[in-house]
Amino acid sequence: MTLIQIDNYGPWTVTPSPRAEADLQILQSELYADIQRQFAANSGLVFFTRFDNMLAVTNGVGAEEHLRIQKSIGNRYPITVSMGIGAAETPYEAQRKASAALQKYGGAQNENRKEILAIDGMVNSDESFVQIAHIDINGITNSLTDIIPAYDTSFIVNRVQHFLMKKLIEKGSLLFFIGGDNFMSPCNGLDPEGILKIIEEIEDEINIALKAGVGKAPNAEKAANLADLALEEIRGGFTYKLVHVMKE
Amino acid sequence: MTLIQIDNYGPWTVTPSPRAEADLQILQSELYADIQRQFAANSGLVFFTRFDNMLAVTNGVGAEEHLRIQKSIGNRYPITVSMGIGAAETPYEAQRKASAALQKYGGAQNENRKEILAIDGMVNSDESFVQIAHIDINGITNSLTDIIPAYDTSFIVNRVQHFLMKKLIEKGSLLFFIGGDNFMSPCNGLDPEGILKIIEEIEDEINIALKAGVGKAPNAEKAANLADLALEEIRGGFTYKLVHVMKE
Amino acid sequence: MTLIQIDNYGPWTVTPSPRAEADLQILQSELYADIQRQFAANSGLVFFTRFDNMLAVTNGVGAEEHLRIQKSIGNRYPITVSMGIGAAETPYEAQRKASAALQKYGGAQNENRKEILAIDGMVNSDESFVQIAHIDINGITNSLTDIIPAYDTSFIVNRVQHFLMKKLIEKGSLLFFIGGDNFMSPCNGLDPEGILKIIEEIEDEINIALKAGVGKAPNAEKAANLADLALEEIRGGFTYKLVHVMKE
Amino acid sequence: MTLIQIDNYGPWTVTPSPRAEADLQILQSELYADIQRQFAANSGLVFFTRFDNMLAVTNGVGAEEHLRIQKSIGNRYPITVSMGIGAAETPYEAQRKASAALQKYGGAQNENRKEILAIDGMVNSDESFVQIAHIDINGITNSLTDIIPAYDTSFIVNRVQHFLMKKLIEKGSLLFFIGGDNFMSPCNGLDPEGILKIIEEIEDEINIALKAGVGKAPNAEKAANLADLALEEIRGGFTYKLVHVMKE
Repeated sequence: MTLIQIDNYGPWTVTPSPRAEADLQILQSELYADIQRQFAANSGLVFFTRFDNMLAVTNGVGAEEHLRIQKSIGNRYPITVSMGIGAAETPYEAQRKASAALQKYGGAQNENRKEILAIDGMVNSDESFVQIAHIDINGITNSLTDIIPAYDTSFIVNRVQHFLMKKLIEKGSLLFFIGGDNFMSPCNGLDPEGILKIIEEIEDEINIALKAGVGKAPNAEKAANLADLALEEIRGGFTYKLVHVMKE
Repeated sequence: MTLIQIDNYGPWTVTPSPRAEADLQILQSELYADIQRQFAANSGLVFFTRFDNMLAVTNGVGAEEHLRIQKSIGNRYPITVSMGIGAAETPYEAQRKASAALQKYGGAQNENRKEILAIDGMVNSDESFVQIAHIDINGITNSLTDIIPAYDTSFIVNRVQHFLMKKLIEKGSLLFFIGGDNFMSPCNGLDPEGILKIIEEIEDEINIALKAGVGKAPNAEKAANLADLALEEIRGGFTYKLVHVMKE
Repeated sequence: MTLIQIDNYGPWTVTPSPRAEADLQILQSELYADIQRQFAANSGLVFFTRFDNMLAVTNGVGAEEHLRIQKSIGNRYPITVSMGIGAAETPYEAQRKASAALQKYGGAQNENRKEILAIDGMVNSDESFVQIAHIDINGITNSLTDIIPAYDTSFIVNRVQHFLMKKLIEKGSLLFFIGGDNFMSPCNGLDPEGILKIIEEIEDEINIALKAGVGKAPNAEKAANLADLALEEIRGGFTYKLVHVMKE
Repeated sequence: MTLIQIDNYGPWTVTPSPRAEADLQILQSELYADIQRQFAANSGLVFFTRFDNMLAVTNGVGAEEHLRIQKSIGNRYPITVSMGIGAAETPYEAQRKASAALQKYGGAQNENRKEILAIDGMVNSDESFVQIAHIDINGITNSLTDIIPAYDTSFIVNRVQHFLMKKLIEKGSLLFFIGGDNFMSPCNGLDPEGILKIIEEIEDEINIALKAGVGKAPNAEKAANLADLALEEIRGGFTYKLVHVMKE
């Protein structure tokens, strides 16, 4: 995985005086879209995470591509980005290594740290394997979006995210909100039963019914696509399972 | 407030087959940046919320501007957006009215509902008043970002968001994550003591120290800017309070 | 009219070494789209011109909006823009005044000139009048695009542009390529007969048949829209004239 | 080379009624930036040409990448694009073949033609060779931009473009305006003496002094970069030649 971090962003946002919040929101979301587009061109997938810190599943994206993206961002934005790359058996461990690799070069607000590419390790293509779960809330549109206020729905979605994050991190899996009522979880090492157990616990604890499509492939693009297809199978009633897996 | 909702988005994302996740992420974040830029041109402020449902503080943005933005999006994206507008004493109540106004015209996945502008009520300029709190985590960069893994930091930030949402909604205030360790809360009707109490409770419950700058002005742009300035005063040590208010 | 000029752009593009041409092309076209969107929010219309120098018809766009746009660009791009504003009877004269006003503050590559807003004069709303002609080539798709090589068609389009610019500048009118086989000409002071004469001359000289829709309104947005509608009337055969005018 | 053509664009722009010109300008320039970014990720280079028809030097970009880009655009814009690919000794011949290949599938305004990828031929990597000339006007900032009106400068730049196109097409070379006073010419098969002769003719005919940096490499990105470096050598006075060539 790759950690993408804006260099010295916090201080920049308030120098010389606080920049218009709307401009910062535009900058952050366009930067995310831009980085997403460039990693996607190499079959990677980026999650916005905190916007100033993004995490990406980058199996198959080489160091040269990372450098090209850094340079391209530096040429078109008022800020620069540093990156850390790590590889491990679980996504949690991979991002931990990626974070540590970058942290070695100085803090996020270190004025002297700029456009660093810190590589702890990268997976070689023949061993590359990505497992991603696409999780959503059953029938949210009819049961929530169309009935209760928009904020209440987003409150519930955030609550679900909070519970999912708490349970998945214990398994070495990550969870990212991807809009609507959808979440994506890079979850190498977590088996379907493990995911089902988490879904059942959440139904018990907060009475929200979830389902998950799981994709397994050599890169994030294919794994995410298979996870979508698996989720469609559940939605379409082709399977009664709450967790459905599709391999390449 | 205005609720901006993508028309029939869910079905579109999987028709004829699931679209590449990266493309959807790019589409959503560019749409948000685009809508933000257009509302900002009229001193409004948009929060991405769930991306397919966005909430905006739009005091001073007229119906004509809303229509222009709808049309402009319809001309440049593969999707269209409907909007609901509501006004009330508290942000929560305003978004509730905005949601109800739009829901009357059909569900988010109703194929026949397209580019609706549903107005429950709008505030007239002389009565317009916006209060926004900019809340962040004290010294997160040194204590978290530069030390622990990136995902762990975002886990803590999400946890803080979850607790803040829970406490603020009881006061009729909303909370939105705006990146990094920053949150913005439209909080008309909530006094500084009320915000301080919530900050203290969170420090007790999850041991995370927060601070809040509060801005009061006729529109969201000015209120957010004053909130930023107030937060800078705390950061700069010009006040020892954890909640600092600035009026126009 | 408003001249929008990137500050000290040339030197920036080659410092420290020439930046990737693709990045510069992306930067320029996104900057244009961005500035267009913001002026359009105030019913203005921007032409990309040379990209590092853009000309815009900005009747009705106030000094405050110009400043807001400058600041917003400065917050989101690695470059800043300066602007000059001029008003006159003819578009040519207006851009001449706008250019002179900005030139007074230093050259385009003057390192010390940054985010200048130089106002020579602005039209007040009750006297505001914009005349825009939308000119295109008759049946270009069937006669050229679908038959000859793409470059040959663009060669012919450029040739038409060259002849139109030469003839229109003598009348104090401007001409901008807006894509495809379309041109827009801010042409206050030029009557339909004058435009028809130019179209006929070009048919004689280079044997290309043109037609023009002309719109007259208080701002660029409405004038351009009326020009489009007038052109549609000719395309639709509702008039046999080669030049058709629509007023508000 | 690759021809990228928006499917049935003309009719779309006026259906049901003419769309706001500003929106079309934003759509076109963002589409160009987007396509540029995606081809650039594979070391290609796109020229905006007529915006609804773009020409790109795509040596080294495979059919799969072309398909990915088409799909990505189709997922995020209200329009789709078709592409034709051709290979030849000269750029002119290559775009001719690319155009013919696409034209076979139906016209640009054929309602049934959608997302076609028409391949006449592609160069294999070991034979791939791109020659690009970066041509600009000597001292334009001091002599024109900072002295005469902005439109007059763009008039002169367009005049230079017109003359360059006329002379280069006879040599099988193409010419594209890339902003400011800069032009790029894919010119495989044209030797430095040929370029110098054209520059001298233009100085004689319209008294404008040009210079050219020429780059030779296996792909467009490297060739353009070498052309930039060669031009810098002339600007820096490291060579007195008006045409300077750099090879990989």
